[in-house]
Amino acid sequence: MLMEQRLTLITLGVADVHRATEFYEQKFGWKKAASSNDDITFFMLNGIMLSLFNRESLAEDAAVVSSAGTGFKGFTLAWNARSEAEVDAIVGDLKSKGVTVVKEPQQVFWGGYSGYVADVDGNLWEIAFNPFLPMDERGNVVPG
Amino acid sequence: MLMEQRLTLITLGVADVHRATEFYEQKFGWKKAASSNDDITFFMLNGIMLSLFNRESLAEDAAVVSSAGTGFKGFTLAWNARSEAEVDAIVGDLKSKGVTVVKEPQQVFWGGYSGYVADVDGNLWEIAFNPFLPMDERGNVVPG
Repeated sequence: MLMEQRLTLITLGVADVHRATEFYEQKFGWKKAASSNDDITFFMLNGIMLSLFNRESLAEDAAVVSSAGTGFKGFTLAWNARSEAEVDAIVGDLKSKGVTVVKEPQQVFWGGYSGYVADVDGNLWEIAFNPFLPMDERGNVVPG
Repeated sequence: MLMEQRLTLITLGVADVHRATEFYEQKFGWKKAASSNDDITFFMLNGIMLSLFNRESLAEDAAVVSSAGTGFKGFTLAWNARSEAEVDAIVGDLKSKGVTVVKEPQQVFWGGYSGYVADVDGNLWEIAFNPFLPMDERGNVVPG
């Protein structure tokens, strides 16, 4: 299974989504995407998205037990597939190569389907299918 | 000074660059860029780059005193400007808005010019000019 060499989303685990959002809006002068809500903020960058999400919630989503421990670095990288089947295939392939699967692929509350794997330094990669986040042929997120 | 809404590089601070590089090559199946060397690995993604760099060295580059302390999250995001003057202008503008400047813009050993600022959660953004990393009009890194 070919894992295209690209990235979809960087999520920063923040203490206060509202406060962090104001920072990027007021200091960087960036505009959040319309898909943002009270719980998560998205900034559309060049083909990828930056998202701001509560640190504890992010740790829970990645099934990391304690967000304060050394096990959670406070951010995640996401590689979005084009279907649930592709998520299963990619995660299955990585697992067969000995990669640590932190969370098996499953339906998630926001309507998507995702699992998490860790690299050798414990950096978390979410392998996800998000039906609400269209991508073009190159794998760039399409501004919505 | 307009800070275009984009990202250039994500750098993961890793324990062993060689080991981490092998992970991305052998498990993800990704190919490193020709610009990689023994000290740093670059993977060209969709318009941005992922780089793997020694965690201690990354902390030093960002002028973070102790990489083991809570002050360093183990990764940095980079926003590349198109000139040294633009780096100065962006960092100066952020500073005037009350943003914490972790490292004032300066010449760096690899031939570039950069400074670091922190967001409200302590996430580090390097504002850099890298004459060896060309970008297109949209701010995407041009594969070299």
